[in-house]
Amino acid sequence: MRTSPDLGAFAQGAAQSAADVLSRLRAKSPRVHCITNSVAQNFTANVLLAVGAQPSMTIAPEEIGHFAGGADALLVNLGTFDRERAEAVDIAVAAAVAAQRPWVLDPVLIDRSPPRAALARDLLKRRPAALRLNAAEFVAVGGKADAAATRDFAAAHSTVVALSGATDLVADGGRVAALANGHPLMARITAMGCASSALVAACLAVESDPFVASVAGMLILGVAGEIAGENAAGPGGLAVSILDSLYRLDPATLAARAKVS
Amino acid sequence: MRTSPDLGAFAQGAAQSAADVLSRLRAKSPRVHCITNSVAQNFTANVLLAVGAQPSMTIAPEEIGHFAGGADALLVNLGTFDRERAEAVDIAVAAAVAAQRPWVLDPVLIDRSPPRAALARDLLKRRPAALRLNAAEFVAVGGKADAAATRDFAAAHSTVVALSGATDLVADGGRVAALANGHPLMARITAMGCASSALVAACLAVESDPFVASVAGMLILGVAGEIAGENAAGPGGLAVSILDSLYRLDPATLAARAKVS
Amino acid sequence: MRTSPDLGAFAQGAAQSAADVLSRLRAKSPRVHCITNSVAQNFTANVLLAVGAQPSMTIAPEEIGHFAGGADALLVNLGTFDRERAEAVDIAVAAAVAAQRPWVLDPVLIDRSPPRAALARDLLKRRPAALRLNAAEFVAVGGKADAAATRDFAAAHSTVVALSGATDLVADGGRVAALANGHPLMARITAMGCASSALVAACLAVESDPFVASVAGMLILGVAGEIAGENAAGPGGLAVSILDSLYRLDPATLAARAKVS
Repeated sequence: MRTSPDLGAFAQGAAQSAADVLSRLRAKSPRVHCITNSVAQNFTANVLLAVGAQPSMTIAPEEIGHFAGGADALLVNLGTFDRERAEAVDIAVAAAVAAQRPWVLDPVLIDRSPPRAALARDLLKRRPAALRLNAAEFVAVGGKADAAATRDFAAAHSTVVALSGATDLVADGGRVAALANGHPLMARITAMGCASSALVAACLAVESDPFVASVAGMLILGVAGEIAGENAAGPGGLAVSILDSLYRLDPATLAARAKVS
Repeated sequence: MRTSPDLGAFAQGAAQSAADVLSRLRAKSPRVHCITNSVAQNFTANVLLAVGAQPSMTIAPEEIGHFAGGADALLVNLGTFDRERAEAVDIAVAAAVAAQRPWVLDPVLIDRSPPRAALARDLLKRRPAALRLNAAEFVAVGGKADAAATRDFAAAHSTVVALSGATDLVADGGRVAALANGHPLMARITAMGCASSALVAACLAVESDPFVASVAGMLILGVAGEIAGENAAGPGGLAVSILDSLYRLDPATLAARAKVS
Repeated sequence: MRTSPDLGAFAQGAAQSAADVLSRLRAKSPRVHCITNSVAQNFTANVLLAVGAQPSMTIAPEEIGHFAGGADALLVNLGTFDRERAEAVDIAVAAAVAAQRPWVLDPVLIDRSPPRAALARDLLKRRPAALRLNAAEFVAVGGKADAAATRDFAAAHSTVVALSGATDLVADGGRVAALANGHPLMARITAMGCASSALVAACLAVESDPFVASVAGMLILGVAGEIAGENAAGPGGLAVSILDSLYRLDPATLAARAKVS
């Protein structure tokens, strides 16, 4: 989605930038601390390992400061949210901010739970580098799923919005990219959105421009899913093959298959 | 297992009824809220997504009322049971009852834990639409794994008993069906019983007769497992293929392969 | 690694001993209670089921004594450690000791968390039959990853040390074995180390010499992983195939492929 000639030029370069981010992920193997729901933990850890990052997952308040402060990036996912996790998030975000590490907010299913939506709105004020969510969740924090409104929301909250859908939208206050990779079976596997948030966090660890990092994270999963979906008999096969695709994905293939506009 | 000519006629129609339930599952995509153990969460969510339902899994007391009250059915699984889950169950069952939604009780491993068995007996008094369990667990709530005793137990507790085994038994106060689908490798994958309970809950969301819904849920998993087991090299392959089989299972195949008596 | 002619003779017999342990695992189907992190629970349960053991996983303080005391072995894994788990560990270890059941300590990522490392040192005083960990974790409890230091540490703590790495080291106060099976992709799947600890616990349930049991548990996973890795397209495929390999592994293949020195 070109919003000006300059942004169009950016979009054309985005595929190559994503390939560069993937190369750095492989070379640096960043640590990503993930506060995520118990449904998603195993798949998220395997997605990070497949792409070359190192996951950790504790949520214990006594020790999460050690993990989050020592990691290269932090993921805060609000799925299956309980009291201990709320306390852990507070400590972990403070530790990440103190250590100047980027963090990603993934406000899972806040459209179904008013207390969880209220927590998400509070966390947005603490300036995550990126907000990764779907359209219903975006509406629940006051957003609207079109390009202009997404950019305005990103500007107002000093963050990058990475909006998942049939076509993904990624926006900061000035730039918007539409990403058209992926496969319909990806919606039939739990924690796929959570995994994309974890990949965005991993990319933020090796790329200082949060917009470029967010585009890269979304593209890496979209292209790997597209490749995995080509031969999958169903969602079970896809969930296995996407880990293999992430592991085998090379930067040149990522750049060649990326559908960015 | 025909207990009278009329019930025999019912059993012959059960395969077609299950196929009709599967069609409605695909068309309506019901939401199923699952309070289940952390071992089973990921597989259970993927089983529900594969068959066309929408899972949610939170157990936080602050928000579970929102999720359970807004869902089309509720699953209460007692595996890895902790204090927070006990509180969540109490709130969720109240919300489901208030919203007139069906709920399923799966009293995992109560035969090994007296406090968990006591909780299961209390929950039975709150009238789950179905009780899905194995023979050892059934004994621990006072049941006995034969057709007549199962029917009596169902009558006394105003529920449907869905008893898993080499042959599954499903009974309400009047009807009993024996289901002979499945594959031996299904016993070598954790959370397979939990997944069958989740499928029963999904079927209850689209079928008002709890006996028909329970038979359908058990048959869907049994037939999908049987198909998956035909080419599986072992339990790992089966766990993947069963998701693909659930996704691809069509009502006609379900009706043709169902072994009901 | 032969440390004397007698120990060399032992090492030569270790492959056959491991095969005998595997036969007993299949015949006796021991119950293993696992206190493990929520990332690892599902894979650990499936690994135990694949090899023929029966897992249980609760961490609720109210009931863990019933589970741990009734099991044939106990696994204590410190990953994603929270308050409830700490309380559960205390009760479970006491129940295992009272019932004279062996238990395994797996101090996951204690190198990154001082409070977790302190807990691990306290637990070591309660004499686990085996301590399964990697080099960084071993350093965090005061060990050093070479054969002589590992043996000294095992002697000082009256335990067996099973140290994972490119080559695994297993030592008690007198004996040391180096195990060279495995596959590089195993490091790209979360919970593989946790699963090896669970297998050591399962072997302890059927073998009274903790050194022999620990060697057997490490070899079973190493050989199964090696077989699975031969045809895996990536880590996703490996995670599936390793369950199939564990299920299909026969004692003669284990003895023939074991690389012990």
